Amino acid sequence: MGSDLAPEPEIEGALAALSDIPELRLTLVGQQDKLRAALKGRGGDRISITHAPEVITMDDSPLRAVRQKKNASMLVALRLLKKGEADGFVTAGNTGAMMIASRTVLRSIEGVARSALCQLLPALGKPALLLDLGANVDCTAMHLCQFAEMGMVYAQDVLGRDNPRVGLLNIGSEQLKGTDLVKEVHQRLSQAEHINFVGNVEPKSVYKGEADVVVCDGYIGNFVLKTSEAAALHIATQVRYQMSQDLISKIGGLLSLGAMKRLKKTIDPNEYLGAPLLGVRGIVIKQHGGTNALGITNALHGAVRAVNSNVTDHIRDGIAEMRSPQLN
Amino acid sequence: MGSDLAPEPEIEGALAALSDIPELRLTLVGQQDKLRAALKGRGGDRISITHAPEVITMDDSPLRAVRQKKNASMLVALRLLKKGEADGFVTAGNTGAMMIASRTVLRSIEGVARSALCQLLPALGKPALLLDLGANVDCTAMHLCQFAEMGMVYAQDVLGRDNPRVGLLNIGSEQLKGTDLVKEVHQRLSQAEHINFVGNVEPKSVYKGEADVVVCDGYIGNFVLKTSEAAALHIATQVRYQMSQDLISKIGGLLSLGAMKRLKKTIDPNEYLGAPLLGVRGIVIKQHGGTNALGITNALHGAVRAVNSNVTDHIRDGIAEMRSPQLN
Repeated sequence: MGSDLAPEPEIEGALAALSDIPELRLTLVGQQDKLRAALKGRGGDRISITHAPEVITMDDSPLRAVRQKKNASMLVALRLLKKGEADGFVTAGNTGAMMIASRTVLRSIEGVARSALCQLLPALGKPALLLDLGANVDCTAMHLCQFAEMGMVYAQDVLGRDNPRVGLLNIGSEQLKGTDLVKEVHQRLSQAEHINFVGNVEPKSVYKGEADVVVCDGYIGNFVLKTSEAAALHIATQVRYQMSQDLISKIGGLLSLGAMKRLKKTIDPNEYLGAPLLGVRGIVIKQHGGTNALGITNALHGAVRAVNSNVTDHIRDGIAEMRSPQLN
Repeated sequence: MGSDLAPEPEIEGALAALSDIPELRLTLVGQQDKLRAALKGRGGDRISITHAPEVITMDDSPLRAVRQKKNASMLVALRLLKKGEADGFVTAGNTGAMMIASRTVLRSIEGVARSALCQLLPALGKPALLLDLGANVDCTAMHLCQFAEMGMVYAQDVLGRDNPRVGLLNIGSEQLKGTDLVKEVHQRLSQAEHINFVGNVEPKSVYKGEADVVVCDGYIGNFVLKTSEAAALHIATQVRYQMSQDLISKIGGLLSLGAMKRLKKTIDPNEYLGAPLLGVRGIVIKQHGGTNALGITNALHGAVRAVNSNVTDHIRDGIAEMRSPQLN
């Protein structure tokens, strides 16, 4: 029930994922009348409905909504995970509510001080995984080191990156720039032998593809992600606008349609696997609220890969191993 | 001596500005042998050279460089301002050194607690003025309110905006989102009757042109600016790349050259007036290190406009007037 156009993108995306992935079984959680009506004549034997009468909207205060709407689809779905009746959860709903509900219902993996929301940013070569995006301002050095560990595991397990390069987001590339927190984290990650730490990375280095995993506190991360999305959208809009200004440009624009489609594919969030919340006991993937069916299908692919590769167990093991003096 | 290709962009840009602006007189400050050689046969009677033997490089530590290189071009130039022998100063050199040197030599305008570095961000309609970009992390609510005042004055005087809309940079548009600092500033600016405060603005609202002036702390501001530049460059590079992938796209690309040129004009920093450091006693404009001659010419235009419109006096008056209880 979470996306702006729910439940249509969810249902269409779910059906496409079922046809892509033979071993997948899906439970749609939400208002059963709506879901049944929308699913009528389209469902198969691998899709079922679990009723949840309430809906958390994008305008709800996350904390209040999680406390008061006990039977919202998000909470009902997370309880299925908790009981072992589901292996992963995909939602396009309220991000804050998703994080609070996941932490409350599933709890953190042993040793994880704070779960982290991650997202892929477009970059030359392969996209970079940015975390945390959880909008928390009070991150400690230990939190950021754990983000590095969790991001590394996800990049290996789900993105298939070999020995992923981990960078620390900073304004300047010199070690001395940045806050005391960033300097402290830089020192700790430099000393962590199992982490392929490539040092400080600026936004332009991220776009150049110089790191697989980019670590930052959730407040900065949010600004970087939102600025990045806004700038890309602005440029794309300007390209279209300028190409509509005269006949030659219009013809140029028509001939460039294929090129523009390929470009869109590299920056469209619906082409990505969704944003995993790493560090909770279960696979939780957030897709953006404006998702289309493709975005839901891709988020489901991401969830299946995360389940199949045991990313949760690997995070638990990684966090346990990193409890050496220099990382805590 | 400051830009990456100094002194050529400075000299070519200076000569172009002299031909644009009849009342302009310029002093080139730097190593006189180099400047004389580069200027030979090109100069006129409105351009002179003041010798400065030392150069602050991009790799210098700003604080140490300002303390130790007393005869660097930047410091010599600022002393000309201090003595009243120049009305404005344009540099493409080390940003940190420029800020420290300006504050040390010129000092702050009476009542200004912290000077702020501003830059124009591309946006629909007219670009938005973002400040502070000074990389300071410890901004108070009073600092941010003063940034709003100074940005408003600059937008009126130099950018010619009437009753400029002032926004507060935030992740969400709701008043309740953000840090305690942001909430406090939101409340104060809402109560300031002489400021046309439009509330919180997200990066996407900035790009949509919903504010003329966007206030934030210098640490966030730097991330937003650098991410914005990196994202724009990435998309522009990707457009070129995709248009080179097949014959049809190549022809489309050729026909779209005019459109692309117009697009580049809207995002090329050389097309803007440079980044003013507001709040010091004098006009100081920073152009980016990779500037070309056009960037220098435009920064000189910005400096002339700032001098002619008395922006420094107006900031002093504005800061004095805003000493009401709710703004301090």
